[in-house]
Amino acid sequence: MIDDPEGAFSEPSIKLADTSVPVHDLIRKRWSPRSFADRPISDTDLKSLLEAARWASSSNNEQPWIFFVARKSDAAEFEKLFDLLLPGNQVWASKAPLLMIMAARKTMTRNGAPNHYALHDAGQAFAQLALQAVALGLHVRGMAGFDRERAVVDLNIPEEYCLGAAIAVGYAASPDQLPEKYREMELSKRQRKPLAQFVFGAGWGTPPPAI
Amino acid sequence: MIDDPEGAFSEPSIKLADTSVPVHDLIRKRWSPRSFADRPISDTDLKSLLEAARWASSSNNEQPWIFFVARKSDAAEFEKLFDLLLPGNQVWASKAPLLMIMAARKTMTRNGAPNHYALHDAGQAFAQLALQAVALGLHVRGMAGFDRERAVVDLNIPEEYCLGAAIAVGYAASPDQLPEKYREMELSKRQRKPLAQFVFGAGWGTPPPAI
Repeated sequence: MIDDPEGAFSEPSIKLADTSVPVHDLIRKRWSPRSFADRPISDTDLKSLLEAARWASSSNNEQPWIFFVARKSDAAEFEKLFDLLLPGNQVWASKAPLLMIMAARKTMTRNGAPNHYALHDAGQAFAQLALQAVALGLHVRGMAGFDRERAVVDLNIPEEYCLGAAIAVGYAASPDQLPEKYREMELSKRQRKPLAQFVFGAGWGTPPPAI
Repeated sequence: MIDDPEGAFSEPSIKLADTSVPVHDLIRKRWSPRSFADRPISDTDLKSLLEAARWASSSNNEQPWIFFVARKSDAAEFEKLFDLLLPGNQVWASKAPLLMIMAARKTMTRNGAPNHYALHDAGQAFAQLALQAVALGLHVRGMAGFDRERAVVDLNIPEEYCLGAAIAVGYAASPDQLPEKYREMELSKRQRKPLAQFVFGAGWGTPPPAI
């Protein structure tokens, strides 16, 4: 890990974002590993991750996000979140020292109207958490692959909330500990669409002059 | 602005996030001003903002986000986005040198299945753009207050997409140029719920031991 005083693992440079113009190092170095070291996360770092999420922006400052949090040291709590993950994620997430599941309030607190930005703003909080993780020498992997319907029951989530992402957090470790299929994915180059495919002027389909 | 070599405006320290534990400066310094300086954004900085968004994570690496972008120097394009904003946002957004409107693809490209994380992942891209803005001495204000239905028509957005946020980008300026109502909001302290209100263990309602 970058700047990890205890880690023996050197992050594969192939995981640095291959950007067309420079971006801040936090953003360049963020990626989503599956291989995590058997090393706990301190109380302060856990709070720092959540504090970073807390200061995300949100529509009407609604702050619709909820985090369910379980550390491996709390075995029963960890098992409860782990049990909701799909098998393909359980294969590697068992090593992570910290699991989270997010929810988002679908209605505005002040008047019960639908909040179109509930998941959008949960995504903002997630992204700030993921970048704070990089600042702490940690990494995050978000997961869509968990049982959202069962999570509502098992976690006793009120009906005005919907599920966000599941999240594994930890210190990235060597891909060697992963099963072969995942090891290959862990070492593959990160891919993104070119800007001209998703940046338009004031109408669909045509990139603006600067792009 | 912080580190703004040309700016005469000193950011109000009250806008620094009042965190319970330290978070990275990019996150601590991000806020959502309404008062923007009459100063254009360079081509490189515009690309850098979008490049930061590009490297957000997304469910199945779907990258569902679309950005409509208009600079004030492209008057007709700017007017087209500006015209979609609600009057309460037009009051201050007229000064911003750059407007954007985001959309998100609601279905998976590979099989047309619903993408539960479309807006969630657009929110991630938005958050990375907002933090890259801070790195460049810029600030971003997201807006829910625009005509999403008319945007679909005016911007010719295909039906498998939904609207994300509207965004004003620029160099923060003195609140003195704002109408009084907005000036007061611009100088008010930033507020967030305490962690214990939105961080639970592996079940609704009870914070975990570390929080």
